[in-house]
Amino acid sequence: MTSQTDIPAATDAAIAYLREHDPEHLAQLDEFLRIESVSADPERIGEVRRAAEWIVDELTRLGVERATVHETSAHPIVTAEWMKAGDEAPTVLVYCHYDVQPADPLGEWISPPFEPRHENERVYARGAGDDKGQLFMHLKAVEAWTKTAGRLPLNLRFFFEGDEEVGSEPVEQFIADHADLLRADVCVVSDGDTFDDDGTPAIGYGLRGIAYWEVRVQGPRQDVHSGHYGGGVDNPANVLVRMLASLTDVDGRFTVPGFYDRVRALTDEEHAAYAALPFDETEWADETGVPAPMDGERGHILLERLSARPTFDINGIWGGYQGDGAKTIIPAWAAAKISTRLVPDQDYRDILRTVKAHLESLAPPTVRVEVKIIHGGAPASTPLDHPGIGPAARALEAGFGTAPLFQRSGGSVPVVAALDAHLGLKTLMVGFANPTGNFHAPNEWMSLRNIRDGMTSLVHLWAELGAMSASELRGD
Amino acid sequence: MTSQTDIPAATDAAIAYLREHDPEHLAQLDEFLRIESVSADPERIGEVRRAAEWIVDELTRLGVERATVHETSAHPIVTAEWMKAGDEAPTVLVYCHYDVQPADPLGEWISPPFEPRHENERVYARGAGDDKGQLFMHLKAVEAWTKTAGRLPLNLRFFFEGDEEVGSEPVEQFIADHADLLRADVCVVSDGDTFDDDGTPAIGYGLRGIAYWEVRVQGPRQDVHSGHYGGGVDNPANVLVRMLASLTDVDGRFTVPGFYDRVRALTDEEHAAYAALPFDETEWADETGVPAPMDGERGHILLERLSARPTFDINGIWGGYQGDGAKTIIPAWAAAKISTRLVPDQDYRDILRTVKAHLESLAPPTVRVEVKIIHGGAPASTPLDHPGIGPAARALEAGFGTAPLFQRSGGSVPVVAALDAHLGLKTLMVGFANPTGNFHAPNEWMSLRNIRDGMTSLVHLWAELGAMSASELRGD
Repeated sequence: MTSQTDIPAATDAAIAYLREHDPEHLAQLDEFLRIESVSADPERIGEVRRAAEWIVDELTRLGVERATVHETSAHPIVTAEWMKAGDEAPTVLVYCHYDVQPADPLGEWISPPFEPRHENERVYARGAGDDKGQLFMHLKAVEAWTKTAGRLPLNLRFFFEGDEEVGSEPVEQFIADHADLLRADVCVVSDGDTFDDDGTPAIGYGLRGIAYWEVRVQGPRQDVHSGHYGGGVDNPANVLVRMLASLTDVDGRFTVPGFYDRVRALTDEEHAAYAALPFDETEWADETGVPAPMDGERGHILLERLSARPTFDINGIWGGYQGDGAKTIIPAWAAAKISTRLVPDQDYRDILRTVKAHLESLAPPTVRVEVKIIHGGAPASTPLDHPGIGPAARALEAGFGTAPLFQRSGGSVPVVAALDAHLGLKTLMVGFANPTGNFHAPNEWMSLRNIRDGMTSLVHLWAELGAMSASELRGD
Repeated sequence: MTSQTDIPAATDAAIAYLREHDPEHLAQLDEFLRIESVSADPERIGEVRRAAEWIVDELTRLGVERATVHETSAHPIVTAEWMKAGDEAPTVLVYCHYDVQPADPLGEWISPPFEPRHENERVYARGAGDDKGQLFMHLKAVEAWTKTAGRLPLNLRFFFEGDEEVGSEPVEQFIADHADLLRADVCVVSDGDTFDDDGTPAIGYGLRGIAYWEVRVQGPRQDVHSGHYGGGVDNPANVLVRMLASLTDVDGRFTVPGFYDRVRALTDEEHAAYAALPFDETEWADETGVPAPMDGERGHILLERLSARPTFDINGIWGGYQGDGAKTIIPAWAAAKISTRLVPDQDYRDILRTVKAHLESLAPPTVRVEVKIIHGGAPASTPLDHPGIGPAARALEAGFGTAPLFQRSGGSVPVVAALDAHLGLKTLMVGFANPTGNFHAPNEWMSLRNIRDGMTSLVHLWAELGAMSASELRGD
């Protein structure tokens, strides 16, 4: 800004702009959500690209410069920058992703996933919360500044990817190759959620990593009669089920040798901080419809298990007859998609290799087992005394009217660890999705409240960080 | 016959008739196989009925009397009779089924399952071997006698059902209600196979029973994000896999208490008889494409495990994401179809209840488990000194040019146990399908050799049994 004293007034003007253009912005959000950018679906490659191009057009329209669709080994990456605040002003890298999860099971959606529905002060659509809605909020916060003050109070760079839901395969190489487009004093990632659905925002300072495999067990050449072959031909589904069951013990801990070697135990302080968070386990479980929450790993309360401990999940399993009635076969094969969430300091590359080798070692001689690595991503954390934390907390409190809580997230955003590794860039996770908003599930939604308070928070966030110098924000 | 001396000449004439009409009969078989009588498919109820009506028309055309389509709680049952051989002549009940297994996975069929393909001296079609092809052979054996001698050398009753592939639900009640239509001195079932594919026929004297369930584990109301909920919401696929894996131990034996209580151990003589059968385990395994046969239960050779010991099979399993790439969800539910083959003297009703209760007892409080009983059928056996065994062996040797071997079958034909229980009727299993003929699998086939030699054997069988008196055959 021309002077510090202009900032409060300019902030107010930008917020007023958002209020005035709310209906128009929501209609534009629907337009973005209608693009079927499902990165896992080879038939929608064109739709993913269309979303990238939509963003570039929008950034360019807002006066953001060098907005570019970069080709990668997978879906495109979009970068852009607004660097007119000068060398002394801080530079923030904004990361979101514009791809979405597959929408199936389609039958469980109340209205079609790519036709946004507005109901009960919510927007229902695939990507409403994860993550296109949040990416859109960033575009509108920029617009609010540029259309009122004619400028931003700091330098911003943008990094939007299209492979987050399929493992962010190309981002690490892209970061290594394009440091010049991404260099900043801190990164802000909006791909998480608020603390609750009652208006308590959150700042995330940790993320789990992930490792994901597909296991396929092949038995006979084709399905065979279970009466004629049962007892002589090993059943691939029986074998798969035994292999997967053996990966964890009765306490829900992995049995794979070495799996926990690099898991950093929680400190007493961290245990205390977790215990202090307001959280009703029963209410939380009720929201999902389960009869009871998991007992899980001993020595850890539910919130710890949700974000600070590794997990094991069968994400999908299939083989044999799934139709009506009975079919008495030994299926030719059975397969499963499995994954684990990782925590600091587990190395996803090690884990991917170790578990694959372990699964292969479990294969009996009666079948053929193939373990395919699907993807992996590193866990990450940001120190709670990072200089950006205070300004971010003030911005969120200004936007939501409630001070944020600090949390580690159970999800994974592979880019966060890669930015730290390659550029030494720490990340503030400032997420606006609703915690019960059905990301990765049918009927994904985001509340209008979170959209509006979130955009207001972002306007404040740029004002707060813009009031610092670059070296202050870096903590030099 | 008018006199015993006419029998050899009449038999020769009937066999000559089959040879002369071979092309016409094969075309008619194709017509029958084209009817899509899949009993498990609710959309093909009409096709199943059409098959029943096709049989009634054919029997009536051959001069068989009282050919009737009976309504049941499920698909129809067909009965008919030719009783003009007199009271002194034996009466044989012929059982086959006209329903077939579902044809999926359709993509693995080289040609469509309901468009019979003739290649390499085989007929490829769903039901070619199991069991429409064999039912058809019985019709043609009757035709051969009636079109040449103008009569049959004994009394025949027919009992053709349309629910065999889905558990023969209505047959027990039908047998109880219609003893008058089914009473006979012995039953001949053609729903099994020859000993090998090189022309060695077989007489079956034992069948396994079956018990079949569907297990469904329900977790959250809908799929949830595995990062946000993993560690707090139990994964229904993880739970299902653990439950199913726990049903058997490392030796492949059931862990369900009481499961083996009524299993009749093989005698030393039976072990010796099994050991004497010519059987190459490696060749047998190679036929199916598995890298090695199962080790299976200790103390039993492969042939014993295939027919004289219980099995456990997951016939189908499904839940969660099965598409391309990765989807990081905890699935809302996972389900499996499971079954066990039972041996004398296990009671399938007990087993159905016991395993259901056991599975329910394994359910953790974090999920809802539903166990549905799909169907069950009793195991059965016929004494090897039954008076029908000798004539049947001579008839098969005459038809195939090789003496039959005696075997217990690993499959299940629920009606066999029910006929014994209700009518005291013992069964000779005289099956003609090819052992490697892909019953219950894609590309089901039957060799023209087995069709032709089988029909010839049946012509001989009626001559052989017709030479006995009713009381001789009963063993009075």
